[in-house]
Amino acid sequence: MSNYSALKEKVLKANKELVKAGLVILTWGNASEIDRERGVVAIKPSGVSYDDMTADDIVITDLDGNVLEGSLRPSSDLMSHLAIYKAFKEVGGVVHTHSTYATASAQAGKAIPCYGTTHADTFYGSIPVTRELTVEEVQKDYELNSGLVIVEHFNQNNIDPMACPAALIRSHAPFTWGKDCFKAVEASIVLEEVAKMAALTLRFNKHATPAQQYLQDKHYFRKHGANAYYGQEKK
Amino acid sequence: MSNYSALKEKVLKANKELVKAGLVILTWGNASEIDRERGVVAIKPSGVSYDDMTADDIVITDLDGNVLEGSLRPSSDLMSHLAIYKAFKEVGGVVHTHSTYATASAQAGKAIPCYGTTHADTFYGSIPVTRELTVEEVQKDYELNSGLVIVEHFNQNNIDPMACPAALIRSHAPFTWGKDCFKAVEASIVLEEVAKMAALTLRFNKHATPAQQYLQDKHYFRKHGANAYYGQEKK
Amino acid sequence: MSNYSALKEKVLKANKELVKAGLVILTWGNASEIDRERGVVAIKPSGVSYDDMTADDIVITDLDGNVLEGSLRPSSDLMSHLAIYKAFKEVGGVVHTHSTYATASAQAGKAIPCYGTTHADTFYGSIPVTRELTVEEVQKDYELNSGLVIVEHFNQNNIDPMACPAALIRSHAPFTWGKDCFKAVEASIVLEEVAKMAALTLRFNKHATPAQQYLQDKHYFRKHGANAYYGQEKK
Amino acid sequence: MSNYSALKEKVLKANKELVKAGLVILTWGNASEIDRERGVVAIKPSGVSYDDMTADDIVITDLDGNVLEGSLRPSSDLMSHLAIYKAFKEVGGVVHTHSTYATASAQAGKAIPCYGTTHADTFYGSIPVTRELTVEEVQKDYELNSGLVIVEHFNQNNIDPMACPAALIRSHAPFTWGKDCFKAVEASIVLEEVAKMAALTLRFNKHATPAQQYLQDKHYFRKHGANAYYGQEKK
Repeated sequence: MSNYSALKEKVLKANKELVKAGLVILTWGNASEIDRERGVVAIKPSGVSYDDMTADDIVITDLDGNVLEGSLRPSSDLMSHLAIYKAFKEVGGVVHTHSTYATASAQAGKAIPCYGTTHADTFYGSIPVTRELTVEEVQKDYELNSGLVIVEHFNQNNIDPMACPAALIRSHAPFTWGKDCFKAVEASIVLEEVAKMAALTLRFNKHATPAQQYLQDKHYFRKHGANAYYGQEKK
Repeated sequence: MSNYSALKEKVLKANKELVKAGLVILTWGNASEIDRERGVVAIKPSGVSYDDMTADDIVITDLDGNVLEGSLRPSSDLMSHLAIYKAFKEVGGVVHTHSTYATASAQAGKAIPCYGTTHADTFYGSIPVTRELTVEEVQKDYELNSGLVIVEHFNQNNIDPMACPAALIRSHAPFTWGKDCFKAVEASIVLEEVAKMAALTLRFNKHATPAQQYLQDKHYFRKHGANAYYGQEKK
Repeated sequence: MSNYSALKEKVLKANKELVKAGLVILTWGNASEIDRERGVVAIKPSGVSYDDMTADDIVITDLDGNVLEGSLRPSSDLMSHLAIYKAFKEVGGVVHTHSTYATASAQAGKAIPCYGTTHADTFYGSIPVTRELTVEEVQKDYELNSGLVIVEHFNQNNIDPMACPAALIRSHAPFTWGKDCFKAVEASIVLEEVAKMAALTLRFNKHATPAQQYLQDKHYFRKHGANAYYGQEKK
Repeated sequence: MSNYSALKEKVLKANKELVKAGLVILTWGNASEIDRERGVVAIKPSGVSYDDMTADDIVITDLDGNVLEGSLRPSSDLMSHLAIYKAFKEVGGVVHTHSTYATASAQAGKAIPCYGTTHADTFYGSIPVTRELTVEEVQKDYELNSGLVIVEHFNQNNIDPMACPAALIRSHAPFTWGKDCFKAVEASIVLEEVAKMAALTLRFNKHATPAQQYLQDKHYFRKHGANAYYGQEKK
């Protein structure tokens, strides 16, 4: 009997939600969650089919990536997840997908501007795209560096990771995060939709500009922070 | 036992149809209906999952937005719905979504011209896009002002709201309406389809022009008004 | 007991296939079939939901559009169907939809060039778009004229309707046809797919040109005519 | 009792997976597998509906295309499959589809550049597009020549077919291949997704360039070859 049963069930469910939401085909995507008190992370195994996956297949590692429980290899993206957990202390869950529109924007090397309230309801400001990795960063500790380049971007540009829980890795694909793995999945769903809307906005008007800043503020803060009034009161 | 059971069942069904039609993900959308004789509106609760929603969750308010029945908060867009009901006396149902193509057109700040008969069968003339709200209109009574800016546009441009039962709120998303909540849902379905067709029409021909006015007239009036001959006779 | 039961069942099934193939939403589309020996046409009723439709709802008319059997009004597009049956003697079934890409191309006033073998396997040459109707043609006998303008285009341009079983009515939407109503449905499915492929072909290469004529010939004639060798032998 | 039951079951399943993955409509697509020891190929019959197809319908031929078992005609594309098997000795399965985005790129005459890691995880370098066939190549032995033009491209450009298991036949559609028919199906799924992402990448940035070569190398070789570390160890 595992000491991490509940955590593994939750991470299993989050991974399956990625498939259900149409964000993942084949084995392209992974969700994880951290238990900060116990210092462990639960993550999808590498290259395993979602259909067959059970909670027992979810791998438990420490924060250095050592496997503590599980007979399968963890996702090859594990070190990217760990870099995000180490740098962003409020993050409880991380998701990586190759969802179509967000990945295309990453391939194009384009951040996603906030063109409207759909974006502002979840993300404060543009979804950033990271710089190119150097040849050394790719050849050695590639997955770790893929996480670190996100952290570098947020730190250098003074972005609060909880206000913008997503980034596009240039020429690669998106990562999202949140308070737990389900919120990270939700951020992935919203990201893909706003990426699609951004592409279509430019098709309707190639000179489209971001929404007014005061409108972005209104939408973001009616759902987040001390003065939020959207949804039901949390008790 | 509620005095509004039938109304709540109907509004519940309309909200679920939005999901079924693919116009809504997560909790992004809401349908309402007014009972003008009793002076009440039934509307979706705020931020509640569609899967779990029951008729008991539907909130009954008066026309000033005071909750008369229901234990949940009404949709945060309630005041927009009420502004439409107060100004457009024939409207019986209102729907708000963030459907992908219509929202992209709203973000682009572009009205949707009538490029063909699919559009003319439901909407007489372009689907308008509202002006930007001022900083004051956003910071105070934002949701009310989102409804009022639609009303302002229709009044200033002398548009019959029953002949064009939809508007795009700039940088935000569409509202639609109709004789009851089901007709408002239908207008949302048609709006999303004609928004998609408009984007594709421009892709096939960037110089595309609206359909001839006499063709728009023919299609609109064969389905609406005293000389309509589409469908089965209403007895 | 109807003398047209088998015909009505077939036409019912063809109409439902349009929905299943994703070509039709709400009540936008209709399929018919002619029995030339008996001089009757079976067609969908006007404005009736596909879900609830039964074979009894299918309307039987003569070639002038007089209802011979059925308690519902026939599709408002009946006269367009009849114009095609009268002019194109080998046609046994007709379908009208507002499928998204084909309709967008009709709205753009653009014929669909044969960019590749997917198109050539079913349609020999471009899918034509008709001229604008005059104000008189729209205001009087509009539906009849919508069919006649297709016939005019094929006659004036000497196109064999059985080699190109589709046309786009400008600012409106497509019609397709075939030996029976199922072949007409199949032509609608292929038309929508090649319209989508045409839009994407131009996105990949705005200077794309039609496939070589000898390749179009090869594909069309390996599936049609005396030397066809695709599929199983018909016995 | 057939000596090829297991092979036929496998090829049946691969053909049905093409439909399930949304790559095939009507009868447009076919999968085959070779048994090199016994010198036979199992392939889909020509023009037969996927819904009704059973393992008995799968046709067994020798490497010259003579039918050894089965009462139906083999796919009209059989000779293309055989040309690939004869030239590319490591190939065990071949798939042909008219999937939407890959076909549009073939129609546009455009290779698909490697814009990111989604592409590099499966395909090393651009997905090539073949030259135009001559009139003689189309009129005589067309299907054979469609296979040979792929082989010619790979040989002349010194491309390893196992490192780039896909090609676009100009003005026609894609072929993919792999160690067996399931891997060929998987390559078709990935090809369609990267073709779609390529179209969208260009929409976000019309000056988009391929991913850095060292990033392509990293992704390709972490999943393929002696130093691969993605997925679970094969024992």
